[in-house]
Amino acid sequence: MVRLDERQIILLFHKMLGTRNFVSEDVETIKVGKKLFVAKTDTLVASTDVPRGMKIHDVARKSIVSCVSDFAAKGVVPSHCILSLSLPRSFSKTKLVQLARGFKKSADEFSFKVIGGDTNEANDIVISVFMIGTSGKIVRRGGAARGDAIIVTGQFGLAPSGLHIIQGRKKASSAFAKIAKSAVYRPSPRLRFGILAAKYFTSSMDSSDGLSTTLNEMARQSGKKFKVTKIPSDPMVEAFAKENSLRLFDLIFNGGEEYEIVATVPQKMLDSVRKIAAGTKTKITVIGHVEPGNGVFLMDSKSPIEDRGWSHFTSRR
Amino acid sequence: MVRLDERQIILLFHKMLGTRNFVSEDVETIKVGKKLFVAKTDTLVASTDVPRGMKIHDVARKSIVSCVSDFAAKGVVPSHCILSLSLPRSFSKTKLVQLARGFKKSADEFSFKVIGGDTNEANDIVISVFMIGTSGKIVRRGGAARGDAIIVTGQFGLAPSGLHIIQGRKKASSAFAKIAKSAVYRPSPRLRFGILAAKYFTSSMDSSDGLSTTLNEMARQSGKKFKVTKIPSDPMVEAFAKENSLRLFDLIFNGGEEYEIVATVPQKMLDSVRKIAAGTKTKITVIGHVEPGNGVFLMDSKSPIEDRGWSHFTSRR
Repeated sequence: MVRLDERQIILLFHKMLGTRNFVSEDVETIKVGKKLFVAKTDTLVASTDVPRGMKIHDVARKSIVSCVSDFAAKGVVPSHCILSLSLPRSFSKTKLVQLARGFKKSADEFSFKVIGGDTNEANDIVISVFMIGTSGKIVRRGGAARGDAIIVTGQFGLAPSGLHIIQGRKKASSAFAKIAKSAVYRPSPRLRFGILAAKYFTSSMDSSDGLSTTLNEMARQSGKKFKVTKIPSDPMVEAFAKENSLRLFDLIFNGGEEYEIVATVPQKMLDSVRKIAAGTKTKITVIGHVEPGNGVFLMDSKSPIEDRGWSHFTSRR
Repeated sequence: MVRLDERQIILLFHKMLGTRNFVSEDVETIKVGKKLFVAKTDTLVASTDVPRGMKIHDVARKSIVSCVSDFAAKGVVPSHCILSLSLPRSFSKTKLVQLARGFKKSADEFSFKVIGGDTNEANDIVISVFMIGTSGKIVRRGGAARGDAIIVTGQFGLAPSGLHIIQGRKKASSAFAKIAKSAVYRPSPRLRFGILAAKYFTSSMDSSDGLSTTLNEMARQSGKKFKVTKIPSDPMVEAFAKENSLRLFDLIFNGGEEYEIVATVPQKMLDSVRKIAAGTKTKITVIGHVEPGNGVFLMDSKSPIEDRGWSHFTSRR
């Protein structure tokens, strides 16, 4: 038996199914008259995507968040949603009510409507969310220009730390454990910031596959070198890494499940973006800039940041 | 533990998620400018939806067919598709290539483009197909008018017979077994007929949940009585039922997995619909007509045809 990792599967489907990449953008777009119809599917699988201790309504919310975050990065308002639920026959009514409540609360939180769905029986809990919206245009992954600032929202390393804590393998203060676990159970996609600030982005992408994957994908599609000069870390994450002998670099760059926006912004637009960040209470950090060339580098051109984010089928939690 | 059937789950989600039915049409629609954006998701789960002996490329095709058939019934051209694949870690490259080939061939067969997707790891094979198209309008389930003819495409009972044969429980001639199994493995949605004939339909629905379910749903949403005067059977199915002591009525009305169109047509439009049927080599049968009242009846008003089609979570294959 030959096993393929997620990227190889995607490449295989791309090759066999033709003209467009199987996954080349955060969202798919179709021109309808003068508008773009924007769609995105993301699937949550309980046996691989749901960490221990996660409440059912948060499982529903997380399945929604992963789509909302992609819309946020592209600057598109998610307006409608279709759900596909595959559940074990033993799934109780109590759990079902909690699941429905989670979807309802998420629809209110992110202001979209659930317009339909289907239900199926399976040996696993599999939730596919199809999120829909319309837009005049979207920000692409590949539009970064020489000299642009590279910005990120939020901070990195919290959710990966939280996952370590949930798996019970690491020491942490109760205050940090609470924050880090919350980053896993109830991530905050940057929807308002993304919708307002996207007009200033030359490229952008959601960071949920891991910061190193995101930066490499944007650099590759833009045909530019991304130079990182500031690590979007946090003293608490640094302390946690030190105490548990974990590589801080891995926690920050190779974790994933962080629903932040990575974007490139022309230097003269940075102030406008900072104002929107302040107005939406969103922390942003300039982590570097765009240069001619290829690849992603830390500080100087001798330290490449390789693509080591999350991949289904090969990564292990 | 309280178990719910599929309809109860749908009702629960409808109640909790608000304004529109969770499942009230074959497809979902959103107005974009003057056009309708049309979307449909359908999910295939290997452990419950894939009968023994089905080839991988036919599994891919079947997951597509169930969406294509809904578009056919609504008279909408499916133009684009997004796939969500959840696969076990042990899924081999050979199978993956067969799966991709199945999607590619289906895209060619039904003339749509696969524009994206995502891949996930799960303890089951779960394929969610998100089919997209645009249209000026769609035919609803609830528009049948007094006096309309009720028509169906194809014939009923073949796929349910095929399923019995595949499960090895029933006797059949090798000729009938081949036809009946083919109806299970490679169903033929009525896309060309549906697209061309829909303009003459007052209501329509895909029959994949079973003919009795379809007729009852259309009658209910139309607020009319559906009177069935001709059973869309076949001498071969009748012989198979007789030889195996199966109720012919169940094979015809309560099977499901039959991707036919059920529609109501004003009597004066029947000739136009017949011409389109001839032009697309589609068998159609007038099985009854629409009257004032409620419910679905066979021959006279004392023999109700109850809704006994397929329901996930309670039905057993």
